[in-house]
Amino acid sequence: MTPEERVRASFARQGLLATLGARVTRVAAGKVDVELAFDERLTQQHGYLHAGALTAALDSACGYAALTLMPEETAVLSVEFKVNLLAPAAGERFLARGRVVRAGRTLTVCRGDAVAFAGDEERHVATMIATMMALGSRGGREAG
Amino acid sequence: MTPEERVRASFARQGLLATLGARVTRVAAGKVDVELAFDERLTQQHGYLHAGALTAALDSACGYAALTLMPEETAVLSVEFKVNLLAPAAGERFLARGRVVRAGRTLTVCRGDAVAFAGDEERHVATMIATMMALGSRGGREAG
Amino acid sequence: MTPEERVRASFARQGLLATLGARVTRVAAGKVDVELAFDERLTQQHGYLHAGALTAALDSACGYAALTLMPEETAVLSVEFKVNLLAPAAGERFLARGRVVRAGRTLTVCRGDAVAFAGDEERHVATMIATMMALGSRGGREAG
Amino acid sequence: MTPEERVRASFARQGLLATLGARVTRVAAGKVDVELAFDERLTQQHGYLHAGALTAALDSACGYAALTLMPEETAVLSVEFKVNLLAPAAGERFLARGRVVRAGRTLTVCRGDAVAFAGDEERHVATMIATMMALGSRGGREAG
Repeated sequence: MTPEERVRASFARQGLLATLGARVTRVAAGKVDVELAFDERLTQQHGYLHAGALTAALDSACGYAALTLMPEETAVLSVEFKVNLLAPAAGERFLARGRVVRAGRTLTVCRGDAVAFAGDEERHVATMIATMMALGSRGGREAG
Repeated sequence: MTPEERVRASFARQGLLATLGARVTRVAAGKVDVELAFDERLTQQHGYLHAGALTAALDSACGYAALTLMPEETAVLSVEFKVNLLAPAAGERFLARGRVVRAGRTLTVCRGDAVAFAGDEERHVATMIATMMALGSRGGREAG
Repeated sequence: MTPEERVRASFARQGLLATLGARVTRVAAGKVDVELAFDERLTQQHGYLHAGALTAALDSACGYAALTLMPEETAVLSVEFKVNLLAPAAGERFLARGRVVRAGRTLTVCRGDAVAFAGDEERHVATMIATMMALGSRGGREAG
Repeated sequence: MTPEERVRASFARQGLLATLGARVTRVAAGKVDVELAFDERLTQQHGYLHAGALTAALDSACGYAALTLMPEETAVLSVEFKVNLLAPAAGERFLARGRVVRAGRTLTVCRGDAVAFAGDEERHVATMIATMMALGSRGGREAG
């Protein structure tokens, strides 16, 4: 499988991403984009997109960006992430861009940025830093 | 309104929390618990609960824990949060406990811990540190 | 005072930065660089620069980058920061670059990146995301 | 060597901790305390203890708490940490308490809390969450 096929096959197994209506729109070496459309089912109390939905998209974009640089038999696991919310997530459409900052043998550090598209405007609404872990076929099953 | 009424009214306006099937199970001064049941619609690629669903529950538990200590006319906004994933989120039921670590006039720091219940076992699966901001009736609308 | 004068005056009052031998090498709108030379007094147990020294430089670079965009009577306070250590901090010289990601009325989010210079090589050794708070002349004295 | 001997031997090799005047005051399984006295050489611009000094103490307390639970030939490396500053670090003496939250084969998650002692008062001034990595005798040399 190519890295893109691996990403799309894994993405398709994620129940939450289907529930959120998230789609992978770009896969390149160390770079994955995930898109989300606004939906009332995904809001927080002020009517904006919920930080939990943004986080799911950013976490997936970062995790899959890391996966593109890992050996084929490897699975990827989120170790930790931090999100700063920069502005209300108001818009019709949201793009979460995951980028590898440093790829290591065991751990990969990624950065994710989410932008909201409202009409002609694009706004930076959240930024993530995440640590991803490669799980080899040795069968490790630890999350931390 | 009592703090509990404020929390429940705000919670009911969150589309994502309804989509996730999340429920508030405890509201006390500086303490809010949010519960989530396992559902295939909420999984990640290995069949466990997705970190995005856990994060939404933890963020809500922390935000509402902060809100219980804020003046009545105040709204609460997540400034940033960090999540460490400690173990696979495997179980039938998940509880996110939000607790205020320090309440300030503008900013409140909270800690959230998520546990998974699988049969008779209880497992600590994630921990969050979050910064919450009080938005007064002065009408501030900034997220950062 | 110009923003640069404000930054340099405040920097000069920081005992720890003098102890570390840190110097401000650049001040521009939303951008501050802080430099550190390797010293055996600043090492961790493997002989590299200690993460605490790098963090002090990154925190200062981020805080002062935020200060350059704040009104003149304002002081700046670190609310929180997160550091990912990307590679051993080996080198003769280290540069911490602080950049404003989003400037708000109360809170400013900054990103810091530290590079190590070893001979002709430059290596990205750490990345920070930080939340900074503006303290007005109202005399607020809260840290969170 | 006992875990305590390992911690004290490693601590003694850290140039920065000597420069800061930090001391290990407690070593138990999964628990290490590091103490720091106020000194003008360690201040930030308002005269309080600098966040960088607190971070160095917290990072060391967390890293060594993790080390106490690792196999004897293992070294420990900080992968990432996040610090929330809760109150001005004012006092004569500061204690950083590192505690293991979850110990894994490769990664260990720790929590650190710093308190300031001013006269008879004790104040919680900072909290850290950190991810620590075990480096085996296989000779891994990656920081991420």
